[in-house]
Amino acid sequence: MAELKLLGVSLSPFSRRVEWALKIKGVEYEFVEEELQNKSPLLLESNPIHKKIPVLIHNGKPICESMIIVEYIDETFEGPFILPKDPYDRAIARFWAKFFDEKCMPVMGKALFGSGEESDKAKEELGELIKILENELKDKKFFVGDKFGFADMAGNLMAYWMAIVEEASGNVFVTSEKFPIFCAWRDEYANCSPIKEHFPPREALLAHFNARFQAAAAASASK
Amino acid sequence: MAELKLLGVSLSPFSRRVEWALKIKGVEYEFVEEELQNKSPLLLESNPIHKKIPVLIHNGKPICESMIIVEYIDETFEGPFILPKDPYDRAIARFWAKFFDEKCMPVMGKALFGSGEESDKAKEELGELIKILENELKDKKFFVGDKFGFADMAGNLMAYWMAIVEEASGNVFVTSEKFPIFCAWRDEYANCSPIKEHFPPREALLAHFNARFQAAAAASASK
Repeated sequence: MAELKLLGVSLSPFSRRVEWALKIKGVEYEFVEEELQNKSPLLLESNPIHKKIPVLIHNGKPICESMIIVEYIDETFEGPFILPKDPYDRAIARFWAKFFDEKCMPVMGKALFGSGEESDKAKEELGELIKILENELKDKKFFVGDKFGFADMAGNLMAYWMAIVEEASGNVFVTSEKFPIFCAWRDEYANCSPIKEHFPPREALLAHFNARFQAAAAASASK
Repeated sequence: MAELKLLGVSLSPFSRRVEWALKIKGVEYEFVEEELQNKSPLLLESNPIHKKIPVLIHNGKPICESMIIVEYIDETFEGPFILPKDPYDRAIARFWAKFFDEKCMPVMGKALFGSGEESDKAKEELGELIKILENELKDKKFFVGDKFGFADMAGNLMAYWMAIVEEASGNVFVTSEKFPIFCAWRDEYANCSPIKEHFPPREALLAHFNARFQAAAAASASK
């Protein structure tokens, strides 16, 4: 059997994308929990450029960058397809995956962890981005072909993590009154197999973000 | 025959990636030159989210984002493969394409068009990034499998545009003494068919960047 090792952090949405892809394919793997404050020599040597998780090591060869790993898994192992078969649908899936990673992710970071004016601006911008997603999801269960796939996977931070971060930070970006379609997508997501069996535990994530916001508040108070 | 229309800007490296992919596949297409100060209704309607070139319209369906379009072309048309066949090699090609777009591109922009301190910091950072590329290209003609492909295509700004921008701006980032391997890659690139027949004309690019730097200098002097 192929040796498959995933270097990751179990609460990270980036790691989870890869885990979900492996679960969808039904592939066995060894998960190696990394400490981001004290990265393992194996991680540093497997991803010398970015030094980031996740890294999938397949028969000794490392693959980096979560969505690139997901494509690798999709192309390498049998089982249900993660990217659709049709080239146009694939382009659409990649478009939204890129939108999540390059547009939504940095704005969410600034909205939540930025200071004052930067955070206010980012919150407004985040609302605009969710409006775009709301519009795209009109009449659709998932981003492409009504089947959970590549783009949805890339959107996991917004589909699952965000609500928990909202709770921890006291910032509410999304309500079902304001974004009913986006919320319906989130509900479909939460009920989708085999993803739903492999979310990180809600309580553990909440505790993690509570600690993070408390630390940020303490740092800001002591300035 | 399929109707294939490319909305682009002929001096843009992003447009060129798509043109090169179409040339490699030997596919006929209509090129529609866009004015970025006065975007066509077709562009705005085809890429309503980003409102950016290039957009490939294939049988009425728009595809956006240059490297996503290149993958679409690779998956849709017969002819030489742009991404390698092997999944691991594909992952490596995607890794370097992402590195160019997400790491090199923004740093180059800041190095060239940023002001004072920001620009100085970015110039230093750009040197570090070229060092990474120099190291990766050791003993290789191109990024994957010694054949011009996806990652090289994504690196076109650094392979062709950058030297011209250096000349126009008076900033020299790359010398063959400092980065001999990177320069050897650039030479291979310049001699590679069918790419070399489809670079934008050097003189036109130089005039474009000269005008841009003169305008920036005038704006800065009148502050």
